[in-house]
Amino acid sequence: MTLRVGVIGGGQLARMMIVPALELGLEIKVLAEAEGSSAALAATQVGDYTKLETVAEFAKTVDVITFDHEHVPLAILESLEAAGVSVQPPSRALAFAQNKLQMRRRLHELGLPMPVWAEIQTEDDLQEFLNANGGVCVLKTPIGGYDGKGVRIIRSVADAQDWLEPPALARVGGTLLAEEKVGFIREVAQLSARTPSGEFKTWPLVQTTQTNGVCAEVISPAPGANDETISHAAEIARAVAEGVGVTGVLAVEMFETPNGRLLINELAMRPHNSGHFSIEGSVTSQFEQHLRAVLDLPLGSTETRAKWSVMVNLLGVNDRNDFVSGFASILAAHPEAKVHTYGKGARAGRKMGHVTVVSDSLDFATDEANATAQALLQG
Amino acid sequence: MTLRVGVIGGGQLARMMIVPALELGLEIKVLAEAEGSSAALAATQVGDYTKLETVAEFAKTVDVITFDHEHVPLAILESLEAAGVSVQPPSRALAFAQNKLQMRRRLHELGLPMPVWAEIQTEDDLQEFLNANGGVCVLKTPIGGYDGKGVRIIRSVADAQDWLEPPALARVGGTLLAEEKVGFIREVAQLSARTPSGEFKTWPLVQTTQTNGVCAEVISPAPGANDETISHAAEIARAVAEGVGVTGVLAVEMFETPNGRLLINELAMRPHNSGHFSIEGSVTSQFEQHLRAVLDLPLGSTETRAKWSVMVNLLGVNDRNDFVSGFASILAAHPEAKVHTYGKGARAGRKMGHVTVVSDSLDFATDEANATAQALLQG
Repeated sequence: MTLRVGVIGGGQLARMMIVPALELGLEIKVLAEAEGSSAALAATQVGDYTKLETVAEFAKTVDVITFDHEHVPLAILESLEAAGVSVQPPSRALAFAQNKLQMRRRLHELGLPMPVWAEIQTEDDLQEFLNANGGVCVLKTPIGGYDGKGVRIIRSVADAQDWLEPPALARVGGTLLAEEKVGFIREVAQLSARTPSGEFKTWPLVQTTQTNGVCAEVISPAPGANDETISHAAEIARAVAEGVGVTGVLAVEMFETPNGRLLINELAMRPHNSGHFSIEGSVTSQFEQHLRAVLDLPLGSTETRAKWSVMVNLLGVNDRNDFVSGFASILAAHPEAKVHTYGKGARAGRKMGHVTVVSDSLDFATDEANATAQALLQG
Repeated sequence: MTLRVGVIGGGQLARMMIVPALELGLEIKVLAEAEGSSAALAATQVGDYTKLETVAEFAKTVDVITFDHEHVPLAILESLEAAGVSVQPPSRALAFAQNKLQMRRRLHELGLPMPVWAEIQTEDDLQEFLNANGGVCVLKTPIGGYDGKGVRIIRSVADAQDWLEPPALARVGGTLLAEEKVGFIREVAQLSARTPSGEFKTWPLVQTTQTNGVCAEVISPAPGANDETISHAAEIARAVAEGVGVTGVLAVEMFETPNGRLLINELAMRPHNSGHFSIEGSVTSQFEQHLRAVLDLPLGSTETRAKWSVMVNLLGVNDRNDFVSGFASILAAHPEAKVHTYGKGARAGRKMGHVTVVSDSLDFATDEANATAQALLQG
């Protein structure tokens, strides 16, 4: 008998879950959106995850359902749960991942630190929020946004005119989310994992750098973070995981402010880009931990393997990036670099892979990871 | 365009090659002996590797052919090579892996250190060898042996009677190989990799412990090995790889004698049990290195990630070992242990998985790896 994990979605997160499944001897099955997905090797079914019959059929073949993304309709997950399927994280947690307004409301109830925020339904609401927050804010669509999509910096009501028109507003649930534009010194992320039985573990707090709203570089641990910040970040992650009922891996993205506050920006209830470093940088990677957690197995050690891990994303420059031209000379120049590519077609801005370098020297890790990534993208 | 590696054989070595293929973004295809093999996830074909048509058909789908085992008939490999297929390691190297007598002859030509050995065709040959070597020797069938099979400790001609009978002798090529029973203080192994272009790298010399002729425990690096031994072992590996024309990973198993000599025992021209530690213990695992090498890509760094790595094999105790009973409590007790299981049916003595612990403390790594393995086998 083998424990069987079913992953909905065939992206790179599902692909990277195949590795610990092979290692631990778990069976992994993927319900992919299309043929030739990043996780095609483990795709046992290709179908539409917004169709109950498709997902229900897939669920019959595994012991637990988990996710490559957070977009499976809640009604489908609730229906699986009602039929006795183990869905991890459960629908009641994913509801918050799918709606940023509900997430803000819940975090508010939990008393967790956040940017100032408000619900926006009209031009007047938005003008009032701008007036109260120095004439600038971050406006978000509560549903459907990711990697910088559905997020806009607003300096006047006119900047949001198209989103506030009734048909557009209706498409995102009738309400927008306005948030204070935080004057942060940097962005950090706290990765953690929690099992249905309640075991909880964190990885080191990491520093993340975004480019055009997309994660570009992650440094673990966050350089210069003081003990108070580190333990506060871990407490926030635990409060979110327990308060929202998350199981599996949870990433809490936060702003660090000049006066040392941490303010929750976004949540991800699955392995996350900010945790890719853990494949080489930690005793237990986020992908192995996620599989353990969703199966309610004990969590592995999250101790680090070296002082520093630096991960740099391979963001497609154009539709010709194939990572084959120049591959050999790049590997020759960077024997320490761990190159990960996701088997995805090239497109400008697309996450097509990442490079991690683990070292006792932060300078070496940063330089090598960036140089390797740059060479691969130009190769 | 993606680089495509074809692996003949669906065992655990092929299974463990899937991981770096996924990571680097290489395509991996396996020609498996049967359905449900250890490497089934990447098995694109199931067929008989002793049939030329089967292997030739498989070879058309990939850029290079490599191996999970050394048993593909040379005539088939030579035929592929004649047709322009890249076979790595090439047939001229594998010839030595498939015949221990030819291997001894070649190592002798290369002037490499070995136990005293002789070709045995008759009882008189054997008696003479016993007389000259203290009345005891190790007798081997030149072909078909592995993991202690085809190897016997002989103290009199009577002990070898059945192997010397003409029909039995004919089955192994008409000649047996007798070797001095070396009074070693321990067994060590030198893992290395070489590309067709001639790049060569070694991992640390490791100490191996065999139980009933099967690898049981590996410690990297070999405790207390002096610098001279370490550099001598690496020189031996290079001389073998270059002299025999090996590409990909090569394991040289050696005896270390009381007076500090290294004597070559066995060779393996593929990833090897003595190198499993490298998955967690090295910047580049033997499986990633093998894929790089056979594709003639530059080799990755073989630097260690921690002071010590200890690997303990999971050798089946009986046909009921499923590694599921007790799995949770074992993972809970050993959060540092990296558990690998191969998805193989249980059988006494069978290699069904392994456990690696990486640590700055040798005692901790040894204790944890052994305790985890023992618990898994009893679970």
